[in-house]
Amino acid sequence: MARKPFSGQWIAADWGTTNLRIWLIAEDGQVIAHQKSDQGMGKLRPDGFEPAFLDLAQEYLADNTQMPVIICGMAGAAEGWREAGYNAAPCAPISANMVPVATQDTRISVKIIPGIKQLSPADVMRGEETQIVGFLAQNPGFSGAICLPGTHTKWVEVADGAIRRFQTFMTGEIFNLLSKSSVLQHVIGAKGWDDTAFITGLNGSQKPTAQMFELRAAALLAGLSPIAARSQLSGHLIGAELGAVRPYWQDKKVVLIGDQALARAYQTALSHIGCHATIESGDTLVLAGLCAAMAMLEENGRGADHNS
Amino acid sequence: MARKPFSGQWIAADWGTTNLRIWLIAEDGQVIAHQKSDQGMGKLRPDGFEPAFLDLAQEYLADNTQMPVIICGMAGAAEGWREAGYNAAPCAPISANMVPVATQDTRISVKIIPGIKQLSPADVMRGEETQIVGFLAQNPGFSGAICLPGTHTKWVEVADGAIRRFQTFMTGEIFNLLSKSSVLQHVIGAKGWDDTAFITGLNGSQKPTAQMFELRAAALLAGLSPIAARSQLSGHLIGAELGAVRPYWQDKKVVLIGDQALARAYQTALSHIGCHATIESGDTLVLAGLCAAMAMLEENGRGADHNS
Repeated sequence: MARKPFSGQWIAADWGTTNLRIWLIAEDGQVIAHQKSDQGMGKLRPDGFEPAFLDLAQEYLADNTQMPVIICGMAGAAEGWREAGYNAAPCAPISANMVPVATQDTRISVKIIPGIKQLSPADVMRGEETQIVGFLAQNPGFSGAICLPGTHTKWVEVADGAIRRFQTFMTGEIFNLLSKSSVLQHVIGAKGWDDTAFITGLNGSQKPTAQMFELRAAALLAGLSPIAARSQLSGHLIGAELGAVRPYWQDKKVVLIGDQALARAYQTALSHIGCHATIESGDTLVLAGLCAAMAMLEENGRGADHNS
Repeated sequence: MARKPFSGQWIAADWGTTNLRIWLIAEDGQVIAHQKSDQGMGKLRPDGFEPAFLDLAQEYLADNTQMPVIICGMAGAAEGWREAGYNAAPCAPISANMVPVATQDTRISVKIIPGIKQLSPADVMRGEETQIVGFLAQNPGFSGAICLPGTHTKWVEVADGAIRRFQTFMTGEIFNLLSKSSVLQHVIGAKGWDDTAFITGLNGSQKPTAQMFELRAAALLAGLSPIAARSQLSGHLIGAELGAVRPYWQDKKVVLIGDQALARAYQTALSHIGCHATIESGDTLVLAGLCAAMAMLEENGRGADHNS
């Protein structure tokens, strides 16, 4: 009989482009310890992942046992530790087909969660599926839209525990490029927030590429402040996104998962057009999702036991 | 009696952000000589303009005469040689209120053409007004839209020799940022053109921020080529601009002034939505505009003579 996998301690890992975060989880599901490093995928070559992981997880490992490790995020990209591929939507956010990684160090047994792809319109996600499964673990009957605001904001239609379709918007990246690297950098403040200017931006978001230069001209001619310009640009871009993604949120339950400040801006924007959205913490959900993935592997392992 | 100004040789100058171009013009309006340097406004502090100009114009100057110089473009910006301010639209593209520049060197008598501002919606142009006056000098009865595609594309409504209103789109700058500095840089070719992909982009331009990430996903999942991705992104962005600026071009005469390749892309896009546009060379028109400005000063000088 195969030994029950993962019934002892294990390590959950969220390996993004910029950071690696790991949690040591006890048999009863409690977090025993947590570590974070800046060794994100963007800094590593494929052969750098194992040393970076061992560096951070050192204290959690023992010589005579093999520690299960479940990883979500960019470690599974083509340029990551090992390419974990994609499940094709519509599908469950996570299946038991996690991808094993061959390691030099025998103290770890690593599996990476695949991303999700959609063929038409073409789209991909990697990491968000784990936050979604974490949310669904806590809200099993949920049906509606999950929005994950960020550099590349994802809108995901969820029903019956599955991802039906999704769409990625480059809103956050465009905001960063325009505010830091375009002619607007001279008129847009590095921080600060003005709700009124944000609403002004939302109201003028039907023609975002036209209204962007207007910010520069208004700063030159009418003294538009850097904070107002920043908030108004954010309103233009988020408003344009919400206009384009209307079928996802209109008359639907909407949950925002992510960074508090950005999620609140989306909440304000949605509220402005008559949609009430709730906010969930992304950090909490990614761990819940990794635990759900581990439970799925355990379940799968027990099924294998029954069959043996 | 005041001497007739500018009835001898004079120098025309187009001083942009990246380049300085000058022409020595004969009494009969013919170009005697032409020079170009990379000493654009972006490289100069205010006290660097006069040396940069003298460096390029040296051979045209003589010790015992004062050479008139007329400049358009960013030399008149706040961070330029001398701030030349703006005329407020609706107005003629150029008036006789060119702004004199105090110089150390007494061999030159410099005037800068003011830009155009619009208070609502806030907008500014500086340099394009000279190309427009050059076009109007050759097409005095023109009524319609003039589009000047570029980093910041300007759409200008012209009637009765005046600029009625205008709108600036950051389409070119956004294209450059996305194709060189965003996550799309990995899938977008540095050059090349695919007309079919451009039309595909135009057709999907109602939701440009949504379709951008699709280019990356289509490259990952379906092998979208770098040239097709480049052309499709251009189609998304130009299509979104044309959708936003429809009142300017619909059922109007449209003239495109600028770089041939970009102007042809705009021409293709306009043709795709039923608008026939003609293309004029920006280089030719800026010189024609500077000559029109000089003629205006001469006319004004003669008026002063009559009054004296």
